[in-house]
Amino acid sequence: MIIHVKQDAKEQEIQELTTNIKEAGFEVHRSDGRNRTIIGLIGDTSKITENDMKRFQVVEDAHRISAPYKKANRHFHEDDSIIDIDGVKVGAENFMVCAGPCSVENEEDTVALAKRLKAAGANTLRGGAFKPRTSPYAFQGLGVEGLRILQTAKKETGLPVVSELMSTDYLDEFVEMVDVIQVGARNMQNFDLLKAIGKTNKPVLLKRGMSATMKEWLMSAEYVMAGGNENVIFCERGIRTFETATRNTLDLQTVPVIQKESHLPIVIDPSHAAGIRHIIPSMAKAAVMSGANGLQIEVHQDPENAWSDGQQCLTPDEFDELMTTINMLLEIEKKTTGMEAIVQK
Amino acid sequence: MIIHVKQDAKEQEIQELTTNIKEAGFEVHRSDGRNRTIIGLIGDTSKITENDMKRFQVVEDAHRISAPYKKANRHFHEDDSIIDIDGVKVGAENFMVCAGPCSVENEEDTVALAKRLKAAGANTLRGGAFKPRTSPYAFQGLGVEGLRILQTAKKETGLPVVSELMSTDYLDEFVEMVDVIQVGARNMQNFDLLKAIGKTNKPVLLKRGMSATMKEWLMSAEYVMAGGNENVIFCERGIRTFETATRNTLDLQTVPVIQKESHLPIVIDPSHAAGIRHIIPSMAKAAVMSGANGLQIEVHQDPENAWSDGQQCLTPDEFDELMTTINMLLEIEKKTTGMEAIVQK
Amino acid sequence: MIIHVKQDAKEQEIQELTTNIKEAGFEVHRSDGRNRTIIGLIGDTSKITENDMKRFQVVEDAHRISAPYKKANRHFHEDDSIIDIDGVKVGAENFMVCAGPCSVENEEDTVALAKRLKAAGANTLRGGAFKPRTSPYAFQGLGVEGLRILQTAKKETGLPVVSELMSTDYLDEFVEMVDVIQVGARNMQNFDLLKAIGKTNKPVLLKRGMSATMKEWLMSAEYVMAGGNENVIFCERGIRTFETATRNTLDLQTVPVIQKESHLPIVIDPSHAAGIRHIIPSMAKAAVMSGANGLQIEVHQDPENAWSDGQQCLTPDEFDELMTTINMLLEIEKKTTGMEAIVQK
Amino acid sequence: MIIHVKQDAKEQEIQELTTNIKEAGFEVHRSDGRNRTIIGLIGDTSKITENDMKRFQVVEDAHRISAPYKKANRHFHEDDSIIDIDGVKVGAENFMVCAGPCSVENEEDTVALAKRLKAAGANTLRGGAFKPRTSPYAFQGLGVEGLRILQTAKKETGLPVVSELMSTDYLDEFVEMVDVIQVGARNMQNFDLLKAIGKTNKPVLLKRGMSATMKEWLMSAEYVMAGGNENVIFCERGIRTFETATRNTLDLQTVPVIQKESHLPIVIDPSHAAGIRHIIPSMAKAAVMSGANGLQIEVHQDPENAWSDGQQCLTPDEFDELMTTINMLLEIEKKTTGMEAIVQK
Repeated sequence: MIIHVKQDAKEQEIQELTTNIKEAGFEVHRSDGRNRTIIGLIGDTSKITENDMKRFQVVEDAHRISAPYKKANRHFHEDDSIIDIDGVKVGAENFMVCAGPCSVENEEDTVALAKRLKAAGANTLRGGAFKPRTSPYAFQGLGVEGLRILQTAKKETGLPVVSELMSTDYLDEFVEMVDVIQVGARNMQNFDLLKAIGKTNKPVLLKRGMSATMKEWLMSAEYVMAGGNENVIFCERGIRTFETATRNTLDLQTVPVIQKESHLPIVIDPSHAAGIRHIIPSMAKAAVMSGANGLQIEVHQDPENAWSDGQQCLTPDEFDELMTTINMLLEIEKKTTGMEAIVQK
Repeated sequence: MIIHVKQDAKEQEIQELTTNIKEAGFEVHRSDGRNRTIIGLIGDTSKITENDMKRFQVVEDAHRISAPYKKANRHFHEDDSIIDIDGVKVGAENFMVCAGPCSVENEEDTVALAKRLKAAGANTLRGGAFKPRTSPYAFQGLGVEGLRILQTAKKETGLPVVSELMSTDYLDEFVEMVDVIQVGARNMQNFDLLKAIGKTNKPVLLKRGMSATMKEWLMSAEYVMAGGNENVIFCERGIRTFETATRNTLDLQTVPVIQKESHLPIVIDPSHAAGIRHIIPSMAKAAVMSGANGLQIEVHQDPENAWSDGQQCLTPDEFDELMTTINMLLEIEKKTTGMEAIVQK
Repeated sequence: MIIHVKQDAKEQEIQELTTNIKEAGFEVHRSDGRNRTIIGLIGDTSKITENDMKRFQVVEDAHRISAPYKKANRHFHEDDSIIDIDGVKVGAENFMVCAGPCSVENEEDTVALAKRLKAAGANTLRGGAFKPRTSPYAFQGLGVEGLRILQTAKKETGLPVVSELMSTDYLDEFVEMVDVIQVGARNMQNFDLLKAIGKTNKPVLLKRGMSATMKEWLMSAEYVMAGGNENVIFCERGIRTFETATRNTLDLQTVPVIQKESHLPIVIDPSHAAGIRHIIPSMAKAAVMSGANGLQIEVHQDPENAWSDGQQCLTPDEFDELMTTINMLLEIEKKTTGMEAIVQK
Repeated sequence: MIIHVKQDAKEQEIQELTTNIKEAGFEVHRSDGRNRTIIGLIGDTSKITENDMKRFQVVEDAHRISAPYKKANRHFHEDDSIIDIDGVKVGAENFMVCAGPCSVENEEDTVALAKRLKAAGANTLRGGAFKPRTSPYAFQGLGVEGLRILQTAKKETGLPVVSELMSTDYLDEFVEMVDVIQVGARNMQNFDLLKAIGKTNKPVLLKRGMSATMKEWLMSAEYVMAGGNENVIFCERGIRTFETATRNTLDLQTVPVIQKESHLPIVIDPSHAAGIRHIIPSMAKAAVMSGANGLQIEVHQDPENAWSDGQQCLTPDEFDELMTTINMLLEIEKKTTGMEAIVQK
């Protein structure tokens, strides 16, 4: 971290500041320019922030040089991480295609849909059992029964399942019953939840908070990884902006930025970003060419009768059609969904 | 809710739509204009959203008329609610002045500071025991020991205490040891936490999420109230915008808007919004004149040595000076902190 | 437009409102529901806004049904518009590849670069002569001399040229010397400039304002078209959000939304959105698959010595490599840059 | 400006960089830390940006230390500037109360309203003659005839007049006919307009762009001042955020921030920020206590029949009532509107 000392600082104030910094465990590199003194902190700055330095009156400004994340940082882990989801690989040239309904509604439909999705090329199945709804009066999901249905769908198709965990109260059930724990946008900075998941070894799909910076997102991954669980997959699902024509603004620039900063894979969820059906296919295709490591797409056999988010679900036919183009693009990108392996299961 | 049917809709499609709506438990008021049919839903629409209607292909657009919140809604509760915090009242003409350190650090300093704050006019004491920190490597708060210190400070001063709860794991301790449970910005849509707090009768200070709309904020209050706990106080603490000169943008327009929509009190936290010391006094004074029902301000006896957020703490002297003006403004606004009652305790 | 009358409105107030609306030239369709009256306005509502109705105390809310833009509206012009830029077509299956330096610096480099770009597959040449710079002390562009250099580059390569006009003072020179007048993000709502350009028949590249909604953007196109000039091409160049890791957030969802609302083509400028070189190729490829009608990309023969925006320029070699993939994607999308025609020129 | 060189930079690359910087006219202060080299630029950095440095591959990051604005900078002009508007002073303890209709509609009403406003305590009159309307089909203002009406109102009341200039085409008329040229939010970065106004000596009310950072706003003031016209007054009118309950989000934190950075006065326009009548009085009072140097408020004798923005106009009675409290607050703030001087005119 580099500290700019105020121009009118007295020598004694600078001395006190450097003493303070040394007591906090850092070495100090001081450089006196003609008008101004600059102080460099040497040591592990991941536990302090720029603000920790700005509390000193003599400090004009502070700029971090090394990133505050270590385990998520590509600097210390040059190769792409590949996350293993019960046999399905995500990361590097391995592409995730995660599809399924917003909410799990019943066993028959879920199993039938899972079969269709697998046939179309999905390699993982998503389905909500616990739903974060803005209104306390809205349908809140089937709960553990939903997880059980997902297990059945997995048994029938071999597709690993992804579902959202909203509270540590159900962590044990999730560890037992799902293959990927999804952390929703609203819980990206639910630090107690992240810590608890960090103590398991279950793969995590970490959605970006609606107004989270990429740096904060990386720090939330760091929370999980600091606990020992390094199986984190980022998932961009749109950020909140002033634009109201779409539900959120899909930020595909995250893909190259996150991939430069981190070795972890990043997948794109165009369904929640758009919130409108007709936008989803073009954004899914764009996501592949942005270099993303996967997609998460909502599909429902009958969107007009979906219990939640029907306006943003593709039909199975639309998904089929989309996958035809996706597969052409994956060839250009030299990526694979590894469907051959799954189909043989 | 008013539904605009697509201009090219066929009669049969409109019939199917109205059947669907009736099956969902609503009465239908249909109006056929020259170019277009409009359908009004009659009944309790709080459990559905506009999107639930947009999933039907024949629907062009849907607009809610009655608000989706009921218990928080001024429409059904005309008078201002007054929340009782162990004797200190907040709401209507009763003004909350909540001050204290970002983090509780030790007993001696906390008690000494609480005495200074009370003398200056604070009627409640804030202090963080569990801290939501962006980095897993940063100081995470003293935990339950911090709550114990706040209890001691209360015993010494009579000031009710406010502290942030981050997880249902510590709900029992909070119910026992604090007077107001604070829900932080990052947890405003941690619905499981809101539900759990809703089953207690402890007053709640509900901070606005960093990118939450006022409507979502009202819905989060509704989550708490739906459980039976109607002691909710809103707290605006700045929203996230493109501006980087300040940490967040303080949105004082929330005060008249929330007070029009809801009977619940709303207080302002200028410390977290600004993130810079020199901005806080002017924003605190502005907050009083915006019509707010209270203030939450960070004060530290020695900001340069605060363990967290020192750059945004006032000194006790600065707080004294601020309170002098605040008291003049409260007189203009015909509001009171009720200090006479507290001092006699 | 649909107006929701307040629930407690008196009959006389409703009568006054409808009289008012009729005097403004609209027919009224009134529908009295059980709790509430809804009023529909029939007629050309493009000249009024929802706010014009909300000024009446008796009005609770107003929602526009038909879009306020007419000439830009696909509803009244079903087929894709194809804009002719001195022989290069943009729109429908015709794809624009516009490349060149941020600022025109000198004749020799500009001509040499234009030849390289054409060889790589660009079908139009961009170059700034008048530069909108945040600081009055920064380089402001070569002015008319820059336009002259672009003309020379066109003579040497046959590539039509695109340059930004900042003020009506130079409109005549632009009409004479460039093939596409670019309106920059900062001038998207410079209505006097739009009106003046609307009286020419020169193709216009209309950049989206940094915080403009898509609806406002469509209305700015409408300003140009209302004057008689229907040769408008939209250009998305990133919007301003809270994210600071990139200069702006590229909003590719504009592509399907604008194409649904309007018949006009839309192209993507990933250079200004990203503001960082390494992000540009992946976003350019994503843009093609989003369905965009073209790209605008900054290329400089020596970015380290560019007079402006060097950090976001590709080198000619990087552009060559990018175009190889772009051409594969255009084949999938069944689009063409029409290079055969240009090369023969 | 401080430059962080990349950690793996070779000595020769650093040498080339410093040579480059010296050729651009700066002195270089180099500091070699254990892991990294830092380079300080000494000289007038106002004509370069951080990006100008980031174009060099060897540069990791660059941070400006001294602000890029000079004439607007309090550092070089310690005392508050006081702008003289034909006898009415704004700045330091002199408070501007600028009121009037959104659009000038006719002479009789404008004169009558001006008299009422003056009696209530306004010291300047606002009125739109050229209106920036989102739609080309909406009422665009009376034009020069509107300016003539404002002149008549001034003759009758002595109140100096403020009106918005949208294009250099009418600069001469504005210089002759108004006392303050208003630059609207949409034109804050219309640099050609700013330059032209900078060559006059007319006071300027510079509105903040809807998504402009405070730093960009200061740079726009610098554009005007660089031309020689130092009579700039900032006007905050709300910024664009995700919140839709209000038209814009009023950012009162600008007041202490701008006043610390600059010697120029700053006034607040709560009418355009809110866009809703009932919010305006509380925000106007909050603005005074934020330390602002003035207010701009829309008042219309009959908001229900205003030709534009009626939903955000106060009635003259509401303005009277507001001014009663404003005057009490000005006493606390030790500020004055100087009405005694005006009344004697």
